[in-house]
Amino acid sequence: MTLDELYTPCLIADKKIVKQNIDRMNMQAEKLGVTLRPHVKTAKSVEVALMTNGGSVGPITVSTLKEAEYFAAAGFKDIIYAVSMVPEKLERAKDIIDRGVDLKMIIDNAKVAQEISEAGSKYHRVYKVMVEIDVDMHRAGLSADDPAMLEVALAIHDGEGTELAGVLTHAGESYECESEEALVAAAQNERDQIVLAAQNIRAAGMPCPIVSCGSTPTATHAKDLCGVTELRAGVYVFQDLFQAGRGNAEAEFDLALSVLTTVISHKRNQNRIITDAGGMALSKDQSTKGTDFDIGYGLVADIDGKIIEGLFVSGANQEHGIITTQDGSAFDFEHFPIGTRLRILPNHACMTAAAYEKYNVVDGGREIIETWNRCNGW
Amino acid sequence: MTLDELYTPCLIADKKIVKQNIDRMNMQAEKLGVTLRPHVKTAKSVEVALMTNGGSVGPITVSTLKEAEYFAAAGFKDIIYAVSMVPEKLERAKDIIDRGVDLKMIIDNAKVAQEISEAGSKYHRVYKVMVEIDVDMHRAGLSADDPAMLEVALAIHDGEGTELAGVLTHAGESYECESEEALVAAAQNERDQIVLAAQNIRAAGMPCPIVSCGSTPTATHAKDLCGVTELRAGVYVFQDLFQAGRGNAEAEFDLALSVLTTVISHKRNQNRIITDAGGMALSKDQSTKGTDFDIGYGLVADIDGKIIEGLFVSGANQEHGIITTQDGSAFDFEHFPIGTRLRILPNHACMTAAAYEKYNVVDGGREIIETWNRCNGW
Repeated sequence: MTLDELYTPCLIADKKIVKQNIDRMNMQAEKLGVTLRPHVKTAKSVEVALMTNGGSVGPITVSTLKEAEYFAAAGFKDIIYAVSMVPEKLERAKDIIDRGVDLKMIIDNAKVAQEISEAGSKYHRVYKVMVEIDVDMHRAGLSADDPAMLEVALAIHDGEGTELAGVLTHAGESYECESEEALVAAAQNERDQIVLAAQNIRAAGMPCPIVSCGSTPTATHAKDLCGVTELRAGVYVFQDLFQAGRGNAEAEFDLALSVLTTVISHKRNQNRIITDAGGMALSKDQSTKGTDFDIGYGLVADIDGKIIEGLFVSGANQEHGIITTQDGSAFDFEHFPIGTRLRILPNHACMTAAAYEKYNVVDGGREIIETWNRCNGW
Repeated sequence: MTLDELYTPCLIADKKIVKQNIDRMNMQAEKLGVTLRPHVKTAKSVEVALMTNGGSVGPITVSTLKEAEYFAAAGFKDIIYAVSMVPEKLERAKDIIDRGVDLKMIIDNAKVAQEISEAGSKYHRVYKVMVEIDVDMHRAGLSADDPAMLEVALAIHDGEGTELAGVLTHAGESYECESEEALVAAAQNERDQIVLAAQNIRAAGMPCPIVSCGSTPTATHAKDLCGVTELRAGVYVFQDLFQAGRGNAEAEFDLALSVLTTVISHKRNQNRIITDAGGMALSKDQSTKGTDFDIGYGLVADIDGKIIEGLFVSGANQEHGIITTQDGSAFDFEHFPIGTRLRILPNHACMTAAAYEKYNVVDGGREIIETWNRCNGW
């Protein structure tokens, strides 16, 4: 099977580029002297997660308990669930632990710590819990110097059914950085704040074995991770236009994910063509909007993945993608007859991939060399 | 099982409201004297499609051939595939026809008409093909008075492997109408243009049995559909905030779809709470943005579906939804302890539902009375 034969729209991953992206991040982690714990929320694929660790199971981060179950079934044992745990989800977490998984969870609330401890006692388990640290006011977590942070750590540490496993943060602000200097500064701040949190916990007489930080932007731009034990990053395996627009990847070389689509209509009176990859196939993510790299719903590449200069996906109805010229110049319809196959490079790989059950994998060419599964839902 | 027990995030449909929405549109079609051919792309569910026709199979519109296959397997026989057909998809269409489905497809290009005819001849089939009409420059199709429109009709009519089944349009402009007058005018224009297209085809000596138009906004506001044989509408079964913002539904009474979510973190220093329904659970659709009814990624209701005034989903990371006050007033954290269950009313039902495999169905209360399946993908 080749890209010329697949039913469209469908999802394509280029293994050659995935490997390159993985090698680069592994080298970065090695250079910084930290363990890389990939966030598997982007690819949600056992095949890709194995590639990140040279073909064997390694430590991973998940965004849903369903991912934890899926990866546990494939033999992954060292898993951090990096979304605030709530007591209602503890029974499901217990079942994952009972499969032999060393599952760590994160919280930012002392009352929740007590509830988790109570559940641990009830189930005769000790849940490993980390304190989520907020380094830049972008998501959940408590500041490293907030007294409430130590209260949470203490509640976990003192709980009969809980064990304090460390601290974790995600520098969400790094997604807003518009210069390399800002990215380097965000990475430094993320490191400084998470290390400070660990120091404060240790100074209060508690252990803090795991000191976890990272995001693709900060992992890429970190210069020093002294005091950090592990680095997390997710979207780096595929990269996407948002990352390229922010200087964390190069659109021409690093984007491993695309949506294969077919030209289905010519709108000559509107200077545009229509494809069968609309909002369902690309997602409605417009994360490049408002940046100086706004490319609508995606850039357009030919069937071989080479970016076609000057075009972009300007609109996305449910099953219709609208492609036109970036500068309003005349569209060259003759070069794109109905039936032409194109590959759309997405704004946000995590969101786009979520519409599909599997990846059709190429290795730089048109031949589908394998398929990779995905784990969707909750 | 009740809403208090479901694992979150998950998708909830209120059957009581679905029924009410269906009854209202059926009455509208009856009043206008046309057949209603629901577009099943919103719910993508056999159970909902049966409800639209009093429990039995009726004519439907689909947005993917996968939907056509899914509904064919459930006994639906009269199906229009309302996205431009391309020759590469004809073999799959043939297999659907061979299951006994009266499948109609749409095109807007004479060369494609010839290719479909050739494929029909090759497969010893006659494909039923409609001409897509563009009434307001919003998607695919040709204008009713464009000579190219008659050329396409003629190519279909003359083709050995094709049969001219009629004309079809979708008034995309109606999604931009900001007043009832504009909606009524869009509905009238849609009717006038599609009837004109049919007249032009008949005046050229060709048949035009099906004259199909519609969208939820125009179907809701049409006053006269003389000359139209059938009306299409999709999102009306669930409605959503975009439709409410445009005056096609009332947010308090007509929104049947919601995402059940749990409060997972309090960000007191940022005046907001975080839930487990982020961009994956809600979609990244921001179709109310830029309108005078911009509600971010959704409105917030309590577990019973009652809208909580003054709140909205202001942000959506992959698995984190951020809820804050609309007017910046102090968030009442004590009323929303961690673990509180909320229901998020989405911007765009079609996009939000696509993240799920099934609907948890309530009937005005908290009890899950049944589950409905969905057909995702292509």
